Amino acid sequence: MSTEDRREQLLDAGVELFGRRPYDEVSIDEIARAAGISRGLLYHYFPTKRDFVVAVLRRAVDVVTALTAPDPELPPVERIDAALDAFLDYAENHAAAYATLFTTRGGGDPEIRAVMDEGRERRVDILLDGIAGQLLADGSAARESPVLRSAVRGWISFVEGVLLRWLAERDLDRDQLRVLLREALIGAIAAAGRVDPRLGLAAGPG
Amino acid sequence: MSTEDRREQLLDAGVELFGRRPYDEVSIDEIARAAGISRGLLYHYFPTKRDFVVAVLRRAVDVVTALTAPDPELPPVERIDAALDAFLDYAENHAAAYATLFTTRGGGDPEIRAVMDEGRERRVDILLDGIAGQLLADGSAARESPVLRSAVRGWISFVEGVLLRWLAERDLDRDQLRVLLREALIGAIAAAGRVDPRLGLAAGPG
Repeated sequence: MSTEDRREQLLDAGVELFGRRPYDEVSIDEIARAAGISRGLLYHYFPTKRDFVVAVLRRAVDVVTALTAPDPELPPVERIDAALDAFLDYAENHAAAYATLFTTRGGGDPEIRAVMDEGRERRVDILLDGIAGQLLADGSAARESPVLRSAVRGWISFVEGVLLRWLAERDLDRDQLRVLLREALIGAIAAAGRVDPRLGLAAGPG
Repeated sequence: MSTEDRREQLLDAGVELFGRRPYDEVSIDEIARAAGISRGLLYHYFPTKRDFVVAVLRRAVDVVTALTAPDPELPPVERIDAALDAFLDYAENHAAAYATLFTTRGGGDPEIRAVMDEGRERRVDILLDGIAGQLLADGSAARESPVLRSAVRGWISFVEGVLLRWLAERDLDRDQLRVLLREALIGAIAAAGRVDPRLGLAAGPG
């Protein structure tokens, strides 16, 4: 196996392991065993467990970003639903990692926080271009408006808060959860429109 | 000074100090100096710096909860605005503490997290009783609905995300910020109403 392929395989194993159990409870030995390699070889690729955790997180952010990319073939509301479904599937299948990360914020680790913040900023840009811009009467205003950027950034936190609660309580069904998150996004964009009149919705509330 | 008064005075000094500078950068000596007592006496009240940080945080949560209590004399929308203004004043005047806490989630400290989670749950209940219940056609449904609780919990995270960004960027004025947060709350409650038809708004959007 090439160095690059082996590294990829290790990261995939990490995503699966940390998805099922909090990463601070998973030992280096378990990681090596799950990947079918020696502890020494694992250290060759990732000198510390923290290096591995950060690389796995970066990988997960890339995967989620690709999975939830808005589909330009779909009308805006269906686009939100499709992206949310992909995101919720991933979060459910990696619930332990999601809960650990968003509860502890990486335990104050600045590098883990930086990866999370970068992922969030990428999602804001994607949502501004691929969703908010489509919902607005004048889509070109989407990227320029600090109010809209704030609203979308706020909605990303909204999703984090709702999902953390949901993974613990499971007192909504998946459809209810998706509709709540979708309508809250449309509501947040409409709220931005009440602050900045250039941001009127093309149709719907507001 | 009585033991209780002295303890209160120390907590007030901590709230002010940590409000201006990240609490992990403030030494025990500085805290003692600011409170005008010896390091030894400070340790008498709080055996470790962490004990002090947790107690200060608990104090700040109590103060914010009292400051932002919805005023039953006001109509619902003005009630939201008044609570938000009080909250934003406090957050601006204690920006360092706000940013540290909500960026690091207490650096993974379970006790700090527990205080933050309790504070958030109290705010959810207060918002359900004092705000959401007033905006709904049938206010008695407010406490019973997991959808509405999720929406309000999500909005609290929305505020955290927007405010963290705002304290760093300051690219909205205070009025714009308040209107965005208020309209996002009304939007989140309306979003819950789209999931659970018992939750129709008494008036306004939705």
